[in-house]
Amino acid sequence: MEIALERETGSGTLPVYRQIAAHLRAEIEAGRLEPGRRLPPIRELARELGVNRDTVALAYDELSTEGHVESTVGRGTFVCGPAAPMAPVEPAELPLAAAVDRLLHLERARPRYGAARDTAPLHALVPDPALYPVDEFRRALARVLARDGAELLLYGGTQGHAGLRAALAERLNARGIEVGPDEVVLSHGASQGIELALRLFAGPGDSVAVEEPTYANVLATIAAQGLTPVPVPMRSDGLDLGVLGRVLARPEVKLLYTIPTFHNPMGVTTSLAHRRALLATAVRRGKPVIEDAYEMDLRFAGRSVPTLAALDASGLVVQRFSFSKSLFPGARVGSLAARGRAVDGLLALKATTDLGGSLLLQAALAEFVAEGGYERHLGRVRRTLRRRVEAALETLEREMPEGVSWTRPEGGYQIWVELPGGIDTRDVFPDAARAGVLFAPGHQFQHDGRPSNGLRITLARADADAIRRGIERLAAVVRERLSEPVRSAAGARVVP
Amino acid sequence: MEIALERETGSGTLPVYRQIAAHLRAEIEAGRLEPGRRLPPIRELARELGVNRDTVALAYDELSTEGHVESTVGRGTFVCGPAAPMAPVEPAELPLAAAVDRLLHLERARPRYGAARDTAPLHALVPDPALYPVDEFRRALARVLARDGAELLLYGGTQGHAGLRAALAERLNARGIEVGPDEVVLSHGASQGIELALRLFAGPGDSVAVEEPTYANVLATIAAQGLTPVPVPMRSDGLDLGVLGRVLARPEVKLLYTIPTFHNPMGVTTSLAHRRALLATAVRRGKPVIEDAYEMDLRFAGRSVPTLAALDASGLVVQRFSFSKSLFPGARVGSLAARGRAVDGLLALKATTDLGGSLLLQAALAEFVAEGGYERHLGRVRRTLRRRVEAALETLEREMPEGVSWTRPEGGYQIWVELPGGIDTRDVFPDAARAGVLFAPGHQFQHDGRPSNGLRITLARADADAIRRGIERLAAVVRERLSEPVRSAAGARVVP
Repeated sequence: MEIALERETGSGTLPVYRQIAAHLRAEIEAGRLEPGRRLPPIRELARELGVNRDTVALAYDELSTEGHVESTVGRGTFVCGPAAPMAPVEPAELPLAAAVDRLLHLERARPRYGAARDTAPLHALVPDPALYPVDEFRRALARVLARDGAELLLYGGTQGHAGLRAALAERLNARGIEVGPDEVVLSHGASQGIELALRLFAGPGDSVAVEEPTYANVLATIAAQGLTPVPVPMRSDGLDLGVLGRVLARPEVKLLYTIPTFHNPMGVTTSLAHRRALLATAVRRGKPVIEDAYEMDLRFAGRSVPTLAALDASGLVVQRFSFSKSLFPGARVGSLAARGRAVDGLLALKATTDLGGSLLLQAALAEFVAEGGYERHLGRVRRTLRRRVEAALETLEREMPEGVSWTRPEGGYQIWVELPGGIDTRDVFPDAARAGVLFAPGHQFQHDGRPSNGLRITLARADADAIRRGIERLAAVVRERLSEPVRSAAGARVVP
Repeated sequence: MEIALERETGSGTLPVYRQIAAHLRAEIEAGRLEPGRRLPPIRELARELGVNRDTVALAYDELSTEGHVESTVGRGTFVCGPAAPMAPVEPAELPLAAAVDRLLHLERARPRYGAARDTAPLHALVPDPALYPVDEFRRALARVLARDGAELLLYGGTQGHAGLRAALAERLNARGIEVGPDEVVLSHGASQGIELALRLFAGPGDSVAVEEPTYANVLATIAAQGLTPVPVPMRSDGLDLGVLGRVLARPEVKLLYTIPTFHNPMGVTTSLAHRRALLATAVRRGKPVIEDAYEMDLRFAGRSVPTLAALDASGLVVQRFSFSKSLFPGARVGSLAARGRAVDGLLALKATTDLGGSLLLQAALAEFVAEGGYERHLGRVRRTLRRRVEAALETLEREMPEGVSWTRPEGGYQIWVELPGGIDTRDVFPDAARAGVLFAPGHQFQHDGRPSNGLRITLARADADAIRRGIERLAAVVRERLSEPVRSAAGARVVP
């Protein structure tokens, strides 16, 4: 076989092995080396060309990776037949699962938040990065890696880092929740916690009782799992207990998902009496309860109320917690506190989902909690939130027209604002965005996305000044809207 | 109200607020402060006891957290009524989802590996921690945190760190897979990648074609998702293409999960011709293929063969990759490469599952790859694996009796050993464990857990010496077994 090779290396010259590969490729593509033809053995071609054997081997490798030739140990290297012609599948014909099509549909219904420069971001529920204790956390990371090394880079075991579970159990104990470290399961962020807890009790075709309005992402997770949400309306003191009783009596409703503390999106906290009644209803029906306590550590006013998990003696309550809102989301660490067989079930589900989280991040978090960093951080966040909520409530009071009402949270990040009935807050959104304020329109917190006259503003990403500015702008838009005749039927306009 | 207080601080003295709380708690429990009774206003009690108002507030807080009293803004603090009596739910009565019960059942069927001191761990598929580049990774972590700070502690976006996706896309391009960074979705470990890819194409009640034997955890994930596995038997060169054609023709079979490179548990790699034929079959039936390329980077011998993703022009192939086996599992980073609507679907599913992974770990990994650390590490791992596989094959050759056969992997960690027919390797396991060697019995890689005469040994955790020692011990147990009359019916004994 003759191949002309440029052996001088210089700019523009291909390495010799690539020159050999290029020659052979051209011969194959021109059909001069036909399918099934055996290439010369490496040793032979190397001698013939006066090059190193490795050079020829590299050339054959490249052709092999491309699919032009195929090597079989002991037999040699052969030219491959042409691949069967293959047309791309049309996008619409890609056979996706039905649940995925539903999700893509839900996805399209979500508001698109822009990011104009001076806009007040009252829509976001992501804690303010300006508050993150980056340096302290970096030191904690470095310390645990220096101490425990490769151990932290292994699989972490499904349940997660024992030290962090112990620290969480201790914190829960201080709130009257009697769980040990083995009853805490660490999840990959709080969202995974919800998914695991839902799957623990309900399978495709089953239903889940949810507050209305409720956390939008939970509605998406419910849809993705092939479950059906059954709404229980929120009243001023938590969900309607009468409706709850009737809903939980239905056999297809397998559990309740509830946010009794600093409710998302409403910001309200239920009373002890309400919690006891809720729990009694669930226990009477034998239906499990997922208690979402994701902002549990963020009380900045008033007295704490015992959580459902603290009041529960039945073992039916699974409590979700997360560091995502109280510290930062980047650790992707949440937890579930449960009892008995519920723990076994969560671990079995977690094993099929991801084999466990990152021990390294969990260990760093444990270190950060143990040295008091987390408590100090909570102090800073609570002080900040207190200033921000004051700014928000003052401005709402001063600026909002008659007929607008809002909640007064004692913790967490969200305030729920209700405009006079008949207004769909989706319709207000574009004007508000143009005026320089973003909020979360209420329809996305409804189980069926129906219009809502409520909207959520948050204290998470905007500082007190931006909150004042944002609410002033929002109030101006609302006043404008109320002074106009009704200009569109609810739901007739779509958020851009 | 009279309360005797010890004001001297000293060891054994409770803080004053806790003394107040203890007194009130005792009064409530004794019924002297009855439900509904209003406690004195904080200001009043503080004056009466001659203590600071904060001290009384702290005491009321403690009672409130315990559920003994309840405060209502503007009205005061009231003694609560007793909680409704609540009996613990019997463990067996906890209403778990049917899929969870199936998983707990599967869980019980798994072998329990002991951890005796001198045992050769040929069962594990966890890379050797002695090889982890801990210091390099720690420096990468510190560097990215110092550079990007709080940005890395935010939610990462569902798709994951752009830099790592770009680095992965570049690596895939070099293998002839035409994907851009936007067609790579980062997953929380490789397991989540499989779960997402399964859910992308199949919902509860559907079926999935799998090789038999196949990766045990995938069988668990299939069960957890309410899917049914349909086995396609493995031959010496990959799965049986004739059976595959018939299986994919069935309408309820929605996709194929396959491991063409360094198959788990068999260690074999299919030929280019086999890959083309497999792909042609899938395309003819319009059925998607999940290609598991989890050990793709670990070839230590022979020539690389183009992956299914590289050969695919249809868009039906989703390729899974992971750093868990080639680097370490602790980063919990894997990836899926897909096209078009498949990417949208994966992102929508990922959003409902965990809102994305840890940007911090992803960024550190991107840094580690960019500075060449990953390639250097791969070089070390491949050299190590080459030594280990030589030790294993030599020892198998020398020690195993007639009638035993095994595969000769060109990469990855596993070798598949087949004992003469009729032996259930589950039955051999206890004797081997006693003799000081652990392996993975083959039944767990069967879709229905039926007995298998195959077993998997791995090169992951044991060094060359331990591998030699382990195989010698295993061979002795096998020789012993073959010299005996058949002593138990297949499946009659259970792994301890």
